[in-house]
Amino acid sequence: MTDADTNHMRHALSLAARGLGRVWPNPAVGCVIVNEGRIVGRGRTADGGRPHAETLALAQAGRLAKGATAYVTLEPCAHQGQTPPCAKALIENGIHRVVIACEDADPRVSGRGVAMLREAGVTVAMGCLSVEARNLQRGFFSRVNHNRPTLTLKLAMTLDGRIATASGESKWITSPEARRAVHGLRASHDAVMVGAGTVRTDNPDLRIRDLGLPHQPVRVVASRHLRLPQDSQLFATAKQTPVWIVCDDEARLSPDAERWENAGAKLIPVASSGTHLSPHATLEALGTQGLTRVFCEGGGMLAASLLTADLVDELIVFTAGKLIGAEGQPGVGPLGISALSEAPAFELVGVNRVGADVMQHWHRA
Amino acid sequence: MTDADTNHMRHALSLAARGLGRVWPNPAVGCVIVNEGRIVGRGRTADGGRPHAETLALAQAGRLAKGATAYVTLEPCAHQGQTPPCAKALIENGIHRVVIACEDADPRVSGRGVAMLREAGVTVAMGCLSVEARNLQRGFFSRVNHNRPTLTLKLAMTLDGRIATASGESKWITSPEARRAVHGLRASHDAVMVGAGTVRTDNPDLRIRDLGLPHQPVRVVASRHLRLPQDSQLFATAKQTPVWIVCDDEARLSPDAERWENAGAKLIPVASSGTHLSPHATLEALGTQGLTRVFCEGGGMLAASLLTADLVDELIVFTAGKLIGAEGQPGVGPLGISALSEAPAFELVGVNRVGADVMQHWHRA
Repeated sequence: MTDADTNHMRHALSLAARGLGRVWPNPAVGCVIVNEGRIVGRGRTADGGRPHAETLALAQAGRLAKGATAYVTLEPCAHQGQTPPCAKALIENGIHRVVIACEDADPRVSGRGVAMLREAGVTVAMGCLSVEARNLQRGFFSRVNHNRPTLTLKLAMTLDGRIATASGESKWITSPEARRAVHGLRASHDAVMVGAGTVRTDNPDLRIRDLGLPHQPVRVVASRHLRLPQDSQLFATAKQTPVWIVCDDEARLSPDAERWENAGAKLIPVASSGTHLSPHATLEALGTQGLTRVFCEGGGMLAASLLTADLVDELIVFTAGKLIGAEGQPGVGPLGISALSEAPAFELVGVNRVGADVMQHWHRA
Repeated sequence: MTDADTNHMRHALSLAARGLGRVWPNPAVGCVIVNEGRIVGRGRTADGGRPHAETLALAQAGRLAKGATAYVTLEPCAHQGQTPPCAKALIENGIHRVVIACEDADPRVSGRGVAMLREAGVTVAMGCLSVEARNLQRGFFSRVNHNRPTLTLKLAMTLDGRIATASGESKWITSPEARRAVHGLRASHDAVMVGAGTVRTDNPDLRIRDLGLPHQPVRVVASRHLRLPQDSQLFATAKQTPVWIVCDDEARLSPDAERWENAGAKLIPVASSGTHLSPHATLEALGTQGLTRVFCEGGGMLAASLLTADLVDELIVFTAGKLIGAEGQPGVGPLGISALSEAPAFELVGVNRVGADVMQHWHRA
């Protein structure tokens, strides 16, 4: 592996990243084809998951694919699906060498693409920027290996960890720049999820605004009893942009369920555990629906339930330079922790200033 | 003012900064003497406040002071105190030009040093790096102009704003590197202050450790009723390092007061407001004692009382990658806020990683 290989793979990863949030249930893959040092084809998994990155890059390269090297962020597929396998397409187009960042997520098919390439005489190099690639594609890996999407929890709080005054006033704690950054984060996830309390209190729209993007994430509400206002923005816009409501079996059969379905929402029944929806069952239901990356925006009870179940993979914390005090509503509800050693722990990925606020990025320790 | 002037003043400010926390009740002043481009004398206000920066720099310069330029971070004094006025010393040593960052804090004497210099034919340039100088010396300015020290509030919390579990476990939330940074912050303040609850719960020592520094800040406890354990570290060490206890008049006359005084503590009576000591009266009492910079390390009730009284000038927030949940003890107690517009507001000065944690620095908006 040369420096040039690493640079081309970095390029392929940056292409792949553009697909995050728009290619589920498929992985966001990037592909760069290089012939004698010249980039002759580039592609990423298209919106909706098809065509695959390799197909697009090969189409761009045309006859220049012959004898070229392909850089792919994930092992090319080897199975016949709705399209022919990418490994076959690379072979048929005369690709001479394939550099792959990481193996396929699914252990049942992992290695088959590489085997197909090698059998055809193509040189294969594995593991170039594999850590970066695995992190980028972790949502897909999580869906395939654990049948659940990766979960990012966003907290936007005051310096003392509050998300609203005692009376519920929360608009706005963070700066316009931070709120804009949240829209960017929504765009890189397949779905935005909130708890029922947030819908009742804030009546959020949850769509991406002002970024000039054509796609919207699915809007997911976790509401065991389907106690959601029908004069809400979600109800009014469910025909335009998907709204999925996770509820228990009983609520699924209630008259309200029919009203929400007529409004355009999809209802997803899951088991409840104790007084709440089971957070594991909720995420598994979303994984079954094909979601790979979910962005949870609270409220405090849903955040606490996900943290307690150890389902939070990434944490994005916006901190505004205000203090509300102990009467204010906490950003994270009760976690039932009796000792510090039981506290959910995260490692710092990065921290920077966004507008007047601080944005911290942590991942599970 | 030339670039060289600015550079020399920056040098003087860095000398001044070394005096923070060790020169009270005097200001931390720095002085650099430059003769034909060569630095011939440097000084800062000595520990305890005397000799002054100019005296030390002049002594170092000796005969090379003649015809030189002196850079001073604060207007040289013009009044005869325990030592002759610095303005006079600069004149008598033949200083030709004096560059001053900012005027004296005390409006009653401000301008007199400059006038004395000018009358003697010395060229005076004012306002070089005045914003930086005023910020560096803000503790002294606050004491002189408002009869109270500047106050830095430290909060060391989890990501969700908690300082201990429900059962009170708090050791350790932050990393060793963050705790070391706290010792550095203690060293740049004249006093460290905590509430009585913190003494009862944590039995802190509050001294600077492991930094190889010869001086220690005064340890201040705000305890209206003097309900403080006498088997505490503060009681045991009050003869070695000052312990000041702010309490109400009644507690001042109690038998416990005598015990604490015999142990070496100083008792400072102040008025109470409602159920608590008046935070304004507390800081004024500390200003009267000569303190210019106080570092408050909590707990949550004292922090809330200082924030509510708008007495917090700087805020240092250490955030650890842990979550305790809503049952945990909040870093900031009740603030009695009913609308978001009433929330104490701060502006970001800087943010960086310290060990495994994030350190944010905010100042009053």
